[in-house]
Amino acid sequence: MNTKIDEFIEENRELYIKWLTEFCRIPSVAAQNRGMEDAVSYLDDLFEEAFSITPEKLPTKGFPVVYAELEGKSDKILSFYNHYDVQPEDPIELWKSPAFEPDIRDGKIFARGVADNKGNLIARIAAIHAIKQVGLELPVDVKFIFEGEEEIGSLNLPAFAKEYAEKIHADGCVWEFGYRDADGALQVSLGVKGMLYVELSVEAANTDLHSAQAAIIESPVWKLVWALNTLKDQKERITIPGFYDDVESITQLDEEMLAHYRLDEAETLNKLGIEGFLLNLEGMALKRKHLFEPTCNICGIFSGYIGEGTKTVLPSSATAKLDFRLVPGQDPEKILLQLRQHLNNQGFEDITIKVTSSERAARTIPDREIVKAMIEVANQYSDKKPNIVPNTPGTGPMYELCQALGIPSASFGVGNFESNNHAPNENIYVDDYIEGIKMAAALVFEFSRQYDKQGSVG
Amino acid sequence: MNTKIDEFIEENRELYIKWLTEFCRIPSVAAQNRGMEDAVSYLDDLFEEAFSITPEKLPTKGFPVVYAELEGKSDKILSFYNHYDVQPEDPIELWKSPAFEPDIRDGKIFARGVADNKGNLIARIAAIHAIKQVGLELPVDVKFIFEGEEEIGSLNLPAFAKEYAEKIHADGCVWEFGYRDADGALQVSLGVKGMLYVELSVEAANTDLHSAQAAIIESPVWKLVWALNTLKDQKERITIPGFYDDVESITQLDEEMLAHYRLDEAETLNKLGIEGFLLNLEGMALKRKHLFEPTCNICGIFSGYIGEGTKTVLPSSATAKLDFRLVPGQDPEKILLQLRQHLNNQGFEDITIKVTSSERAARTIPDREIVKAMIEVANQYSDKKPNIVPNTPGTGPMYELCQALGIPSASFGVGNFESNNHAPNENIYVDDYIEGIKMAAALVFEFSRQYDKQGSVG
Repeated sequence: MNTKIDEFIEENRELYIKWLTEFCRIPSVAAQNRGMEDAVSYLDDLFEEAFSITPEKLPTKGFPVVYAELEGKSDKILSFYNHYDVQPEDPIELWKSPAFEPDIRDGKIFARGVADNKGNLIARIAAIHAIKQVGLELPVDVKFIFEGEEEIGSLNLPAFAKEYAEKIHADGCVWEFGYRDADGALQVSLGVKGMLYVELSVEAANTDLHSAQAAIIESPVWKLVWALNTLKDQKERITIPGFYDDVESITQLDEEMLAHYRLDEAETLNKLGIEGFLLNLEGMALKRKHLFEPTCNICGIFSGYIGEGTKTVLPSSATAKLDFRLVPGQDPEKILLQLRQHLNNQGFEDITIKVTSSERAARTIPDREIVKAMIEVANQYSDKKPNIVPNTPGTGPMYELCQALGIPSASFGVGNFESNNHAPNENIYVDDYIEGIKMAAALVFEFSRQYDKQGSVG
Repeated sequence: MNTKIDEFIEENRELYIKWLTEFCRIPSVAAQNRGMEDAVSYLDDLFEEAFSITPEKLPTKGFPVVYAELEGKSDKILSFYNHYDVQPEDPIELWKSPAFEPDIRDGKIFARGVADNKGNLIARIAAIHAIKQVGLELPVDVKFIFEGEEEIGSLNLPAFAKEYAEKIHADGCVWEFGYRDADGALQVSLGVKGMLYVELSVEAANTDLHSAQAAIIESPVWKLVWALNTLKDQKERITIPGFYDDVESITQLDEEMLAHYRLDEAETLNKLGIEGFLLNLEGMALKRKHLFEPTCNICGIFSGYIGEGTKTVLPSSATAKLDFRLVPGQDPEKILLQLRQHLNNQGFEDITIKVTSSERAARTIPDREIVKAMIEVANQYSDKKPNIVPNTPGTGPMYELCQALGIPSASFGVGNFESNNHAPNENIYVDDYIEGIKMAAALVFEFSRQYDKQGSVG
């Protein structure tokens, strides 16, 4: 904690809020190829304003990675991984203010992407800006790595990470997300689940038909329903043969961390308006399922007539979008093969599978400098003990960008318990945002200090 | 066949085509409450132009029934049942010309509703117009009964039929639809299947969530998939207990009619671009399933994100629209109770069922005047023997409007083998339309003649 920096940040609240709301005005929806160039161009302008440099645009097969380095005193390197793309704003009609017209009310900023992930991205730029503006030198080198395809599965990031392995090398990486619990405690997260995202499609007749024909013409919707039904049973067990084979056992350390990890059960149920969790789980069993078990979720399903009233139609095609969240040990490539084999074995050879995301899970052990620094900063800025999340249920390319390159990674950020990521009315508290800037600044020094301690001890 | 009438119809081709295309311009989609008043108003104008009368608008709880009577020589009554509503035009993008801008090309008129059912409706008005214009008296009383809710399940027609039973009484009813086979043979249809149309809905959390939550929060889509899977197995057997209990046995007469009935197997497969029918059925087994077996079809299913690309979301609700086509003996009210009970027994008490259509099947035996007259006219206008369809796989309120009131009903009309009812690029041949007008005119006289014959024999 540095009073001078924090005072500067307070004095420049309006500037930093302006940076964020301007950035949130850009509808950078990678899935729909909207506003992506504008987002990159905005970052160009912002780096020019903040640091008088133009960031590099490192090419990928998709949207470029925006990259910048700022030199510090020591040979240690701290990197910040964020993404400038956001989720689509559907269902649009449930937004209380337009998704891409940031609205400040009740102490919160509402906008698509404000929590995931533009709030953190801008807060981290603002933190380095503040350090430099008060005339301090950075204690470590800082690297910014901003990708444009996180919300569409970071399909091109593994190749990027391989190609630019030397360039993006770091001693610790601050991951992109971060939230507070319902009671305000800051979460510090040490891992992410992997993901296999697939679209299953069935085609039948070459046109929609009068549903009287359903007596004798095959229905693609029924085929899809029957196929989906073979993937997971009502006890939530995924029934693809071999699916659980490579799941790593939960260690004693995991169990201990899980015991300390706090899940706001009552608040979550209350917020969502539901009576209980899946399978009526609670306590350790609930936490274990949340953080350490893979999922098979239907993100969307569509076929035929879904408008108002009645239409009697036999649809000609049907599609479902599925995401499997994977845990350490599971290989999305192998799961994909198992899925294909299983569908074939069940008689669904003609269901096509399109892969749109394939990522491995990643973990960092708590005994690393980046983790210890983050916990220390969290303690400095709050009376509440931070909530250590041994493995978050979310996903990101942490394996490819960090674990595979030997870079420890952990995460905290400006989101809250009701930030509504990926959902309507996404938001962060203005105060959390400003405090997030202060904590990011403090982290840079605390990260450096962890190495100094080692030096003084050794 | 009356040469004078037919010549008059030929001379007035353009007028009758104009009537039809004008009517098809009106997007009278009952499901979406579009253009319904305009359609009624157009019929007002047309009856004024054709017969110098204004039809009655008989109220129902929904859209009114347009009704008119024209007096004839005898005490026999022939009624025409048609509907002025049409199906929604989805999927819009597959129309080659706009659905509500009738386009004449390759000898066909393309427009939503032109086959189902505006072509037949206008052809029958035109037929009576032609008879009167050439100075002939109608041999029987003629009644027009045009409802506005056929495409949304005729939910208000049973009450209407009871209230106006005396008014709509007839000795024979010409039903609304009619098609030609691929070889041009005219179909004469003697019955319709019944229908139960339901929307199944599941609600879970009060908002869409990040799909990471799928590990611990219930998914409404999975619940819907699992529930649907319990309704029909992969052998196409509907698995709701009791569903088949009341299905009437197929009689010897049915089997004989079925043997004569021609189903264009190769042409149908070719047209639809598929390799085989459901369960690889063919011949008698295929025909029996088509005409005499009930269905459970998914007209539409929707949940979550269905747009381009990837969105990782746990949806908050899921909906499926189902139609059950029922056969003689089955009571839609009873099937509904069985469905509810079955879902409850399977643990799906919280799936809601909304009924949007409930109709019984209806049949007319071939030995009735209306049937004999129709076959006679079909023979007069074609070298090809008409194809007698003992029971069509489609649905309409024939039970409520005819069978329950003791009125025999049969059907022929202006549609063709590729009319695409309920689908994009709906069409009829201009020549079929003109010939349909001639046949409707001839039917009025032939229907009367059937009674004269009986008189001369008795």
